[in-house]
Amino acid sequence: MKSLAVKTLAIAVLLAGVGSEAAWAAESLQDVMKRRGLSQQDLMAAAKTYTPSGKRDEFLAFSSGGQSGQVLVYGIPSMRILKYIAVFTPEPWQGYGYDEESKAVLKGGQIDGKDITWGDSHHPAISETQGQYDGQFLFINDKANPRLAVIDLRDFETKQIVANPIYKSDHGGAAVTSNTEYVLEAAQYATPLENRKFYPLEDFNEKYRGGMTYWKFDRQAGRLVPEQSFSVELPPYGQDVTDAGKGPSDGWSFTNSFCSERYVGGIEQGRPPFEAGCSAKDTDYLHVINWRKAAELVAQGKAKKINGHNMLMMETAVKEGVLFLVPEPKSPHGVDVTPDGKYIIVSGKLDTHVSVFSFDKIQAAIKAGKFESKDPYGIPVIGMQDALHAQVQLGLGPLHTQYDVKQCVAYTSLYVDSQVAKWDYCEGKVLDKIAVHYNIGHLMTMEGDSVNPKGRYLVALNKLSIDRFNPVGPLHPQNHQLIDISNDKMQLLYDMPLPLGEPHYAVAIEAAKLKPGVRYKVGTNSRTDAQHPGRVRAGEERTERKGNKVTVYGTLIRSHITPEIIEAEIGDEVTINLTNLERAEDETHGFTVSTYNVHASVEPGKTVSVKFKADKEGVYPYYCTEFCSALHLEMQGYLLVKPKGWKATKKEIAKAAYTQADYQATLKTIVDTQAVIDSVVAFITSTNYKDFPDVVNMVEDATDQLGKIPDAKSRHEAAAAKQDWEHANLWAEQVYQYQVKAADIGLRAKTYLEQNGAKKLK
Amino acid sequence: MKSLAVKTLAIAVLLAGVGSEAAWAAESLQDVMKRRGLSQQDLMAAAKTYTPSGKRDEFLAFSSGGQSGQVLVYGIPSMRILKYIAVFTPEPWQGYGYDEESKAVLKGGQIDGKDITWGDSHHPAISETQGQYDGQFLFINDKANPRLAVIDLRDFETKQIVANPIYKSDHGGAAVTSNTEYVLEAAQYATPLENRKFYPLEDFNEKYRGGMTYWKFDRQAGRLVPEQSFSVELPPYGQDVTDAGKGPSDGWSFTNSFCSERYVGGIEQGRPPFEAGCSAKDTDYLHVINWRKAAELVAQGKAKKINGHNMLMMETAVKEGVLFLVPEPKSPHGVDVTPDGKYIIVSGKLDTHVSVFSFDKIQAAIKAGKFESKDPYGIPVIGMQDALHAQVQLGLGPLHTQYDVKQCVAYTSLYVDSQVAKWDYCEGKVLDKIAVHYNIGHLMTMEGDSVNPKGRYLVALNKLSIDRFNPVGPLHPQNHQLIDISNDKMQLLYDMPLPLGEPHYAVAIEAAKLKPGVRYKVGTNSRTDAQHPGRVRAGEERTERKGNKVTVYGTLIRSHITPEIIEAEIGDEVTINLTNLERAEDETHGFTVSTYNVHASVEPGKTVSVKFKADKEGVYPYYCTEFCSALHLEMQGYLLVKPKGWKATKKEIAKAAYTQADYQATLKTIVDTQAVIDSVVAFITSTNYKDFPDVVNMVEDATDQLGKIPDAKSRHEAAAAKQDWEHANLWAEQVYQYQVKAADIGLRAKTYLEQNGAKKLK
Repeated sequence: MKSLAVKTLAIAVLLAGVGSEAAWAAESLQDVMKRRGLSQQDLMAAAKTYTPSGKRDEFLAFSSGGQSGQVLVYGIPSMRILKYIAVFTPEPWQGYGYDEESKAVLKGGQIDGKDITWGDSHHPAISETQGQYDGQFLFINDKANPRLAVIDLRDFETKQIVANPIYKSDHGGAAVTSNTEYVLEAAQYATPLENRKFYPLEDFNEKYRGGMTYWKFDRQAGRLVPEQSFSVELPPYGQDVTDAGKGPSDGWSFTNSFCSERYVGGIEQGRPPFEAGCSAKDTDYLHVINWRKAAELVAQGKAKKINGHNMLMMETAVKEGVLFLVPEPKSPHGVDVTPDGKYIIVSGKLDTHVSVFSFDKIQAAIKAGKFESKDPYGIPVIGMQDALHAQVQLGLGPLHTQYDVKQCVAYTSLYVDSQVAKWDYCEGKVLDKIAVHYNIGHLMTMEGDSVNPKGRYLVALNKLSIDRFNPVGPLHPQNHQLIDISNDKMQLLYDMPLPLGEPHYAVAIEAAKLKPGVRYKVGTNSRTDAQHPGRVRAGEERTERKGNKVTVYGTLIRSHITPEIIEAEIGDEVTINLTNLERAEDETHGFTVSTYNVHASVEPGKTVSVKFKADKEGVYPYYCTEFCSALHLEMQGYLLVKPKGWKATKKEIAKAAYTQADYQATLKTIVDTQAVIDSVVAFITSTNYKDFPDVVNMVEDATDQLGKIPDAKSRHEAAAAKQDWEHANLWAEQVYQYQVKAADIGLRAKTYLEQNGAKKLK
Repeated sequence: MKSLAVKTLAIAVLLAGVGSEAAWAAESLQDVMKRRGLSQQDLMAAAKTYTPSGKRDEFLAFSSGGQSGQVLVYGIPSMRILKYIAVFTPEPWQGYGYDEESKAVLKGGQIDGKDITWGDSHHPAISETQGQYDGQFLFINDKANPRLAVIDLRDFETKQIVANPIYKSDHGGAAVTSNTEYVLEAAQYATPLENRKFYPLEDFNEKYRGGMTYWKFDRQAGRLVPEQSFSVELPPYGQDVTDAGKGPSDGWSFTNSFCSERYVGGIEQGRPPFEAGCSAKDTDYLHVINWRKAAELVAQGKAKKINGHNMLMMETAVKEGVLFLVPEPKSPHGVDVTPDGKYIIVSGKLDTHVSVFSFDKIQAAIKAGKFESKDPYGIPVIGMQDALHAQVQLGLGPLHTQYDVKQCVAYTSLYVDSQVAKWDYCEGKVLDKIAVHYNIGHLMTMEGDSVNPKGRYLVALNKLSIDRFNPVGPLHPQNHQLIDISNDKMQLLYDMPLPLGEPHYAVAIEAAKLKPGVRYKVGTNSRTDAQHPGRVRAGEERTERKGNKVTVYGTLIRSHITPEIIEAEIGDEVTINLTNLERAEDETHGFTVSTYNVHASVEPGKTVSVKFKADKEGVYPYYCTEFCSALHLEMQGYLLVKPKGWKATKKEIAKAAYTQADYQATLKTIVDTQAVIDSVVAFITSTNYKDFPDVVNMVEDATDQLGKIPDAKSRHEAAAAKQDWEHANLWAEQVYQYQVKAADIGLRAKTYLEQNGAKKLK
């Protein structure tokens, strides 16, 4: 059987690539179009989005995952989802919330001392440098349990969650200032400022408050700094979406509101519902805040400590001239600063216009002290007409605006009309409209909220899909529609179903700006970016016991876990640290212990730990949960949980009784397999493989595997010298396993070279 | 402002559809192909996969979600993921593990009395009738915490989880018998049979066991029946993938094994690792079990109760002639019964062949009592040559086989070669090979493990993607590659990244066989399919208090929650039952209470409940978490958690002080808006809209909304009669809100008719 295996290995080498040549397809392109009912326009859309195997997308979109609590990443124009990054909700594939390192991240998001195990993620923001996306960090908020998370785009992992010290919900955020000095988070539903303090709804106007929080970001550390963060107290107006100024308006932020009526509901008591009471007035208020000056005031000690957090109270903010209001029509959602920073465009869901406010006019009014009134809290109100540049009639339910690379061109979603309007905000005219399916919320253009939008594509984040996809039960996917905006007329290219969660907003960045790593420095705790105290080198694995604490320092490599046996007594606290010793890209190992409810994802170089109380007597298999290699199923071990005071009676583990003949057969296999490996190596080195970085990596990996052979070889030879055929044969088998891994990689490299036009060297 | 709103409503009606006509595109198709580097073959692949907006996929694939613990659903050939169904891991978007109904499902999967909050899901199976997929149910296993789940394909929800009473891990399953009498689950890593009982590894051969479990399925109830289920004890050989017989082999099941060496590892003690010790022998064992006879034996009381579960011990199984072994080469994974039920094809990962075993030959050997030996446990072993039909040399790392609609044609994944081999199992010859990217595990053809495969497409479930996609950090997506198998030569069509979890196996069914619903009968508990005791009709909402238990019977409808205020005292146990009163497709509402860590997804007709202890004084907003309508943000309420013995001092909620003029302005808006609605209605009814079921549904929904107006109207008129302008204006606003909802739906219907070629009636 073994010799057969080797023979076919040779044949396999000869056959590799057979399927990739030659003609195919009984159908012509016209046949296919007819069979599938595709128009010429459909074929064009297909050509604009279809991305062949191995080709890359132009942009990567980061989308909130809504109630899933996560962030998802997809490519544009292929609209393929590349990753759901676990943020607010435990997610076992990533080990998030199942290993100790990520549990510490989630613990940072505790509220009132308790775990929150989900999030309602709304608005992602990419870190900016001089108003441009720099691709270093991503921020995302949780509306339900007002929190903010930091994702590092070097490894696409969540590094930090902070809970807002004041609010009970948020919405306006995340948004970043032009150099990511601060990350912005606005309250949503007004509540009393002090935590765990009750005031009745009769005290709503006096005791309930909103606010705007500015989280200080330490870019070097890649973390938010709560002690250096602050909030500005705001009236109970239902703060909503928020944007930071840029260019001339840098230093300011803009937050709208949707229930400045201060209505408190009560349909069950015969009062009209919130939806009636919160939409009765024709205008709400745009909050205009000079955050740079506010930060100075806080630094000067002018903030009040509320729940241990610096809060600039309204009275101070008004007195010091950092807080103003502008009436804005009506139940607005989006507030979007233009790329040049000169205008702030507000979309009123119950208005038919977008309102283009001029930052210059707002500043002129402030400078002149020209206010039409004060609100009930003494905040100066700038007259709407004094602040407006233009109002443009777009349609029903304007919701959110994004910008084009083309001067003055904006795109606004129309929720009720189920359309996107393309319009000119300088001249105030509509340029085009396109129907979307259905009821669009936010929309996104490429880097469309930065100082430097990239044009080309727009994505409509539709709230209903209804009939667009194959039915999958009462709960429908959302529908993100890709629209080509490179021409005068917009054109629908692609419908993408969202399989998990309801995204609210997304941001897209040029793919070339992202340079994530493929491995960690060996022994890294990826959640802190620091060396992990549980790391260990190959050959130094060990298990320590101190009292009832068992600590394992182990490693993972194709295809074994060291150690393979972990012994504990019932009641022990077991901590298993594991370092992935692989260097090869994509060679992740997973780890779990049966029924003990732990799981870790261990990418190359990473060290993780899982921890549990061995409270169940018995035998519990542990294994690698990522199909990492041909003998992946054999990458296993046993946790033995013994009763207290258990004493062994038998000393010997049963042997398979291998003979000298078995050993020699295995040696023969090794020789034959090496010949095959040599032939693959000969093929690879006969080409210009060094011109292909991926292949160079594979060769390095294969060399790593072959490099492990001498140790196993010396073991089988030593055992053979002692006529211990059992161990001689098994260690020889281990040599063969390293050969199989090397052959696996070698064949992959060979296929790669064949498919990517490698040349034969002379 | 209001009159403007109405004017533009009319304009919006006129403009609708502007973007969908006319020419577009400065680039020609050739330009696009050149710019994007597409070959003619790429364009063909694009045409074969691109699925325009609103068009449906031919097949739906159900894929295990690996360590995510979920099941995902995607369309073929578009390769768009439609849903991640929450199964073993709590998932907040679906409310799974966050509402009381789904918590009860997860509780069914407790092990040793504790929650298990994730799963390592491996192999899905669709329910079968006479060996054909019937599209009613889906089953999926959890390898790490050996469990099985039932998903109902009427609503794509998980209905049941059962924990295996014996094993500590599983792998071979889920698979179903030809009429879904039983769902199969095989053990993986051998452990002692009795739960929470320790035996040392020195007792491995005597005390550690594997097994095969047959879970009885009650199709009427849609649930597994533990009391009627049983297992067959098996040797500690590392049972692996399992398939049920069909046609002539119906009544039998086949399970392979991968460590019949019974090696127990110990690399940390200087012993060779599992990967060496478990791959030393040239053959493992195929377990051949007559399950129908085994079930009869269990019914006759011949099983032993182990952990309260019926187990047919090996001794009985051997004596009664229901258990046999056949040697199979080498470290096999897939065991796949051919569509005609005559052959069982085994793939040995360390062999280069697939081995085609003949069911007839196996039966002949059994009948003749022709066995080559007995294994150490006394199980008769049929000679490999006596059972083999053929062995076919395919390449390195054969892993799993699926079938074509074409007679005798099979496809086998080659893990080490990173190829799919197409071959003829009748004549034993290779027909074609294609390279895949990279290291393929299982593969899937359309209904390819049923008696009636459908051909057309094959999906390669690759374990590594390495360089295929834009990089997203050290943890890579998997890569499912779609391959066209309708011609002689296979052709790669599409690379699909998997954004969450590592799927192991997937099954695909003709989309037309699935007929999921879009709404529940009002008041349904979707997890039990029964009427929910917390259901309530519109107008009968109430809050009850009994001792310290507060129970809310509430409703959800665009755009308000009834009640809007919930009052509790600190320490109360609060249960909130919510019924979604919507009838419209896709009108899901979500529900959460700030920082109390509950979330529910409430599809039309569903009733759910969330429950928590109101252990924090203060004010906690609750709101609808699905963007359901224009005034979705206003779909909110307040949970008031008062200190014990709190007494109100103020009686009045602040008023907005609306005047008669406000009321009359709102009345004017209502009249103007009604004119617009009338114009939309006139448009719709001037067409053959009744020929479009989706539009008929929308018209029904719009009529529902308009039907709510008379109640609000009588309220504003009554208030006006009493000169209560506050309530008169607010209830009039509520009339306007219903109009906005009706207009929203009407405009969607109008767009639909325009885009789908509705005809004007004469």
